[in-house]
Amino acid sequence: MTLPNHLLGTLHSLFGESGCSTREAERLAYAYDNSRRNALPDAVVFAREHTQIEALIRACREHRVPMIARGRGTNTTGATVPVEGGVVVSFERMNRILRIDPDNRLAVVEPGVLNGDLQRALAPHGFFWPPDPTSSPWCSIGGNLACNSAGPRTVKYGSPRENTLGLHAVAGTGQSFRCGTYTSKGATGYDLTRLLIGSEGTLALITEATLKLTPKPSGLRTLRATYRDVSSAAHAVARIMAQPVTPCALEFIDDVALKLARDHGGDDVPLAGAMLMIEVDGEPATLPSAVEAVSRAARGEGLETLHVAQTAEETQALWSARKALSPAQRTISPNKINEDVVVPVSRLPELVNGIGELSRKHNVLIVTFGHAGNGNLHVNLLPRDDAERQRAHACLADVFALVIALQGTLSGEHGIGMVKRSFMPLALEAGTLDLMRSVKHAFDPDGILNPGKLLP
Amino acid sequence: MTLPNHLLGTLHSLFGESGCSTREAERLAYAYDNSRRNALPDAVVFAREHTQIEALIRACREHRVPMIARGRGTNTTGATVPVEGGVVVSFERMNRILRIDPDNRLAVVEPGVLNGDLQRALAPHGFFWPPDPTSSPWCSIGGNLACNSAGPRTVKYGSPRENTLGLHAVAGTGQSFRCGTYTSKGATGYDLTRLLIGSEGTLALITEATLKLTPKPSGLRTLRATYRDVSSAAHAVARIMAQPVTPCALEFIDDVALKLARDHGGDDVPLAGAMLMIEVDGEPATLPSAVEAVSRAARGEGLETLHVAQTAEETQALWSARKALSPAQRTISPNKINEDVVVPVSRLPELVNGIGELSRKHNVLIVTFGHAGNGNLHVNLLPRDDAERQRAHACLADVFALVIALQGTLSGEHGIGMVKRSFMPLALEAGTLDLMRSVKHAFDPDGILNPGKLLP
Repeated sequence: MTLPNHLLGTLHSLFGESGCSTREAERLAYAYDNSRRNALPDAVVFAREHTQIEALIRACREHRVPMIARGRGTNTTGATVPVEGGVVVSFERMNRILRIDPDNRLAVVEPGVLNGDLQRALAPHGFFWPPDPTSSPWCSIGGNLACNSAGPRTVKYGSPRENTLGLHAVAGTGQSFRCGTYTSKGATGYDLTRLLIGSEGTLALITEATLKLTPKPSGLRTLRATYRDVSSAAHAVARIMAQPVTPCALEFIDDVALKLARDHGGDDVPLAGAMLMIEVDGEPATLPSAVEAVSRAARGEGLETLHVAQTAEETQALWSARKALSPAQRTISPNKINEDVVVPVSRLPELVNGIGELSRKHNVLIVTFGHAGNGNLHVNLLPRDDAERQRAHACLADVFALVIALQGTLSGEHGIGMVKRSFMPLALEAGTLDLMRSVKHAFDPDGILNPGKLLP
Repeated sequence: MTLPNHLLGTLHSLFGESGCSTREAERLAYAYDNSRRNALPDAVVFAREHTQIEALIRACREHRVPMIARGRGTNTTGATVPVEGGVVVSFERMNRILRIDPDNRLAVVEPGVLNGDLQRALAPHGFFWPPDPTSSPWCSIGGNLACNSAGPRTVKYGSPRENTLGLHAVAGTGQSFRCGTYTSKGATGYDLTRLLIGSEGTLALITEATLKLTPKPSGLRTLRATYRDVSSAAHAVARIMAQPVTPCALEFIDDVALKLARDHGGDDVPLAGAMLMIEVDGEPATLPSAVEAVSRAARGEGLETLHVAQTAEETQALWSARKALSPAQRTISPNKINEDVVVPVSRLPELVNGIGELSRKHNVLIVTFGHAGNGNLHVNLLPRDDAERQRAHACLADVFALVIALQGTLSGEHGIGMVKRSFMPLALEAGTLDLMRSVKHAFDPDGILNPGKLLP
């Protein structure tokens, strides 16, 4: 696609010389995301104001040119790859924290604010915003909202859908709108806020978000439990989640992942059949009873060791295995297939055992770890060559079928993007998909917002 | 409207003799709700199965006959009044708790289950479902979902939108669909679950809900603080919400309400300028520090007394004023106008002072009390005769204008229904309302679901 001259003129007048580019070097830089898929856009613009977005969508709609909203491209599903060309709208320069309002437990931000920058700005006020993807230092709030990105703390504090009060946005029609509230409660009309969150830029472009803040607990304790095998650890997760003290992190690491982390320089990583990292938070006076409650639940068939960190250094050491995992995987497979399936917590033992079987059946290395308290595991397939890559894709289809059979779903926090689109009919009934298409049509009748994503 | 014979035949064959009525006595019983508005439906049906709802919507759509879903009619906005006639679909017989799954912290229920019955069934498992409207013994889960009904506990635990994982429903097109997940986390497509919650039966009829459960804390402490004036109490609310220990109830009662409660037999009700009821919950070991934290915040300019209940009887006594309020109001005005406006917590002092001024300006008795921790106050206008009723309606418009000026919204937990429809353009931009209408059209293209509600 080549952009019509008239549209190019509009882009230049809207964004100026420094805010708009059709140079190949720039287009290449915005062609890909962390999925390693890529496709060249025809232009990149750098938004700074809501009014620019409104004018841009109207102009693109007139010419039926696709627009792809982009935070920092950290997503792993290809959600920001411009598969049909068009204009990539980068929000990286629209990154002001507009207001921190601790009295009302909220903050108002532009979409380009980095998650980590927001957390740092909130800390002096004693608050945090719960969603905490691993990429938090360099992922944007807009991207977090687009993908409903979560992280370890979600088990206690919820995802962006539970932590966002209101949005300012522009629909694919070019219509600006505000939805949600500046209050912590509201029952005034349809919940368009949550509808936009997780819609991956296919319904509207978000230009401002009112985020719900949570008081930062002043105390935190970290526990590490190792188990004879994955099944024992998975059963312990279910026991921990069935008792009243909800941990603020409950991470699972399987034997394959442990071995990998240890082999790649993780001297502190224990050898075990599986490991759980458990964190509890709260006011300091409440921590001993919380540690006792989760320890009681962590004990049981197959437990081998249970450590409670006594110092900050020890806490760092306990987390070493989890931290060593990402670089370790990269050394094995530059083309890892990175999934984030989710099942009911009670079905975790079946999931981890089933994945072990699929790994053997397809002869593909799989490491499994992640947010077990939500039943949300990162199932990473690590093919080392083309033959393995082919087997991995066959294996992946079996993984999804297993997850659906266990009453789970395709994604807990990464979203669908390009890479899981074709599996959507496995997870959702035809009637549900039809309604989602009707909603898409209501917001974006010409299909110009992020085409080729989410809906099959 | 008289129903076409063909449709009447379909109703009888779908619901049987005992599940379908066009008798006037029955139609009268389903003509009204707790708003005291009423309009006769042409028929009432009593659903028991999803398949009946699907067939009913298809039949009604063919004949363009309205359908009004009804739980127990406890809403105060006229949301279940059949203003254009048609078929009232009562869910009172579709009231099975289908599954309680404590290991996965969820329950699956039919919409007719009463909130109180669900709580009783959950108690032995150590869980509860957070939404707790005052009407909980006799309101249904389906109604709670339709209106996003909340209650005092919302300040800590959220509303139905934060406590529902998935739904089974039938859209106004007659299309059945499932949305959401059987897991505690999900990023698989658009969030239709939250879109239906609070849509007041205008998009789809819910036939099953998967509810997120919360462990019931084993300890609870109740505090009562009295203040010199409403402004001091409102400032204390803001201080309590700005510190890290979130109370599980933070109720405000103004001087007018206190006097009313005391005059009508509330011997335990203190005389004061305003009162706060504060509850904290958690494991017993955590309670002393929680009580200390909220007490510290409750103290300050204008505090007169601060009591912590030591026994269950004392807790009951502390709540006596709040409990005496509803009957007391009824003795003054059978036609009370019952609002549930919400403002940012920091604006509560301006709201309560402003309401005092409006009460004087319009010469209408107003009592103000409610869920102050969310900034959600019940502003009840109590006209005693026709002249006062007219003045009350003028006053109400001023109340809404004040609330919007304070960055608040029309409803925190009652919804819009008939009675607040005309005020929607005050709260929402034209663009937002247009999008809501597009969403309505996507789910219910013929406008047969609960016409005349929510959208102006």
